Amino acid sequence: MLERFNVPPKDEVRVPEQSLRSTVTAIFEKMGVPRQAAVEGADVLVMTDLRGVETHGVSNMLRSYVQGYKDKRLNPRPEWHIVREAPGTATIDADGGLGIILGGPAMRLAIEKARKVGVGIVTMYNSGHMGAVGHFAMMAAKEDMVGICMTALSNRVVPTFAAEPRLGTNPIAVAAPAKSEPPFLFDAATSTIAENKLGLAARVGANLLPGWVSDNQGGPVTEEIAVPKRGDYYLLPLGSTREQGSHKGYGLAMMVEVLSTFLAGTLPDALNPAGRARSHFAAYDIAAFTDVDTFKENLDSMLKTLRTTPPAEGHERVLYPGLPEYEAEQDRRANGIPLHKEVIQWFDDITAELSLPRLKTM
Amino acid sequence: MLERFNVPPKDEVRVPEQSLRSTVTAIFEKMGVPRQAAVEGADVLVMTDLRGVETHGVSNMLRSYVQGYKDKRLNPRPEWHIVREAPGTATIDADGGLGIILGGPAMRLAIEKARKVGVGIVTMYNSGHMGAVGHFAMMAAKEDMVGICMTALSNRVVPTFAAEPRLGTNPIAVAAPAKSEPPFLFDAATSTIAENKLGLAARVGANLLPGWVSDNQGGPVTEEIAVPKRGDYYLLPLGSTREQGSHKGYGLAMMVEVLSTFLAGTLPDALNPAGRARSHFAAYDIAAFTDVDTFKENLDSMLKTLRTTPPAEGHERVLYPGLPEYEAEQDRRANGIPLHKEVIQWFDDITAELSLPRLKTM
Repeated sequence: MLERFNVPPKDEVRVPEQSLRSTVTAIFEKMGVPRQAAVEGADVLVMTDLRGVETHGVSNMLRSYVQGYKDKRLNPRPEWHIVREAPGTATIDADGGLGIILGGPAMRLAIEKARKVGVGIVTMYNSGHMGAVGHFAMMAAKEDMVGICMTALSNRVVPTFAAEPRLGTNPIAVAAPAKSEPPFLFDAATSTIAENKLGLAARVGANLLPGWVSDNQGGPVTEEIAVPKRGDYYLLPLGSTREQGSHKGYGLAMMVEVLSTFLAGTLPDALNPAGRARSHFAAYDIAAFTDVDTFKENLDSMLKTLRTTPPAEGHERVLYPGLPEYEAEQDRRANGIPLHKEVIQWFDDITAELSLPRLKTM
Repeated sequence: MLERFNVPPKDEVRVPEQSLRSTVTAIFEKMGVPRQAAVEGADVLVMTDLRGVETHGVSNMLRSYVQGYKDKRLNPRPEWHIVREAPGTATIDADGGLGIILGGPAMRLAIEKARKVGVGIVTMYNSGHMGAVGHFAMMAAKEDMVGICMTALSNRVVPTFAAEPRLGTNPIAVAAPAKSEPPFLFDAATSTIAENKLGLAARVGANLLPGWVSDNQGGPVTEEIAVPKRGDYYLLPLGSTREQGSHKGYGLAMMVEVLSTFLAGTLPDALNPAGRARSHFAAYDIAAFTDVDTFKENLDSMLKTLRTTPPAEGHERVLYPGLPEYEAEQDRRANGIPLHKEVIQWFDDITAELSLPRLKTM
């Protein structure tokens, strides 16, 4: 994540992993979520914060999930079920359950299918928000598989040349296991920046860089600006302008809709603004394609080559997708998860409201 | 494609589709390629030109394929074979055959598997160049499936912050069938621009825009320049700079390596500069996920919504991936394929050399 999104040290409070897990689980349970599902949802959020993906951890998302349960937009006890199935595929109706809780079962189904026929593809519709989809891709990587997860939600991104939004920020995540290097883990919106980055930027007082958003007529904003009010901007596809390749970000966002929304038999938010996510889970059993050891050794060589590549002038080192997340996880497991003091205040308020013990900080 | 890449009308010669097919087939046969394979290779190249993807049609690619056969880098009669297989997956050793010729059999195998278990994934290694991979994705779309094709080759793209290249331009293509709208067809390099665009720009005398390439130390070139000499630049990942999201283009390029190169049990060019492509073919049987009619009707509504979205100021209309390709195909089937006069000269030279009839122009 760019420096500008970090919580400034003066506003930072560190929270132990275990304490965050307990409090988040308890909050989910108070929303009516059964114990095991609450534990799974808390795991997804806390792992996301451990990996340094603040945009999709407790800070931005938990309050919105709590609001969703309170407003009955989220179903705490969904009867999710498979509506169509083949040996390598399935489509799941999530029955309004929270995506971060149902992503686990969906990816486990994909993994199970991959074990039988080499690959498993599961689409899921009618869920709440999916959080950081990299978490689900990682589930497959831990089983010696390549994992992919994509999700489509909302209508905030303007297609190239368009004056109005038609697509979500539609992230793509891919994970693959290496031997001794930290795993490959890519997880990124197909827009120039994720919507949640704007919330984070507002909280830490950071400006938006040129090319990150459009004005409310679809024109790319080409100077640095403060975070605008929600109605005053749209997001741009990765590439920002046609000349720099925004048609590619636009096409990738549509790819996510095709593999998630349309393959599940549903419509994008532009045509059906129901606020329900559509997602795609893929597990590729490495052993069905090649020797697992060969795969891991080869990926190891590449990841090591990438991180030891000489840096360009003005840069300290070359990273690979998954390396900063791994480093953040080591630090945060040992030293706690840094939360903004405003987020701690929110925890204090919600735990008081729900008659739960306060979140323990370090 | 941006205006600047079009062949200037004064340099353009139109060639009928059928005449181009015959000549290209005959050239492949003179290289030792069996008749059926030659017809299939010509079909891929000519369809690519019909779709307006000049970068990957006869102009740039055929001469390089001919040189490959002459230098024995390409095997005209490959004994390609499946080295590992599961009900939903396979890995193919292409035995040095040209990728544009073997992409067809690889995608047909993926389609056959998808018909049985809902999804088919095939990786192929040890092939020559794959051409415009959108062609193979379209093969699945014609069978009421979603098709994906990706390919990894060469070492020309600098990772974010790096001073040296480590990745190929690694394109991703996705195709999906609609009902009455032209099909969705996305096909784009994960670098800011495809390497072949540089050849095309040089031929038509166009400059490169800021953010398209790096200097030979990995620093993004931020002004408009003429096409540099091959050793003087590298390509940048989609996003161009870290601030604009180059880590996403970099991650997507690595995704292509993971799903193609590593899953096939092989190494990227950065570690094994053998000049052999690794590719990934995926076919998703729509009927295994949802009703085919629902899928097509839903995609139709979205594609129509996209192309009728009000354009932003200064733009004429909104396109969707596949629409300009469809329009080019209608025009070119009727009025011939526009080739640069320099390309016609190359055809005259090669047909004379191989004792073949001259390419018929309009």
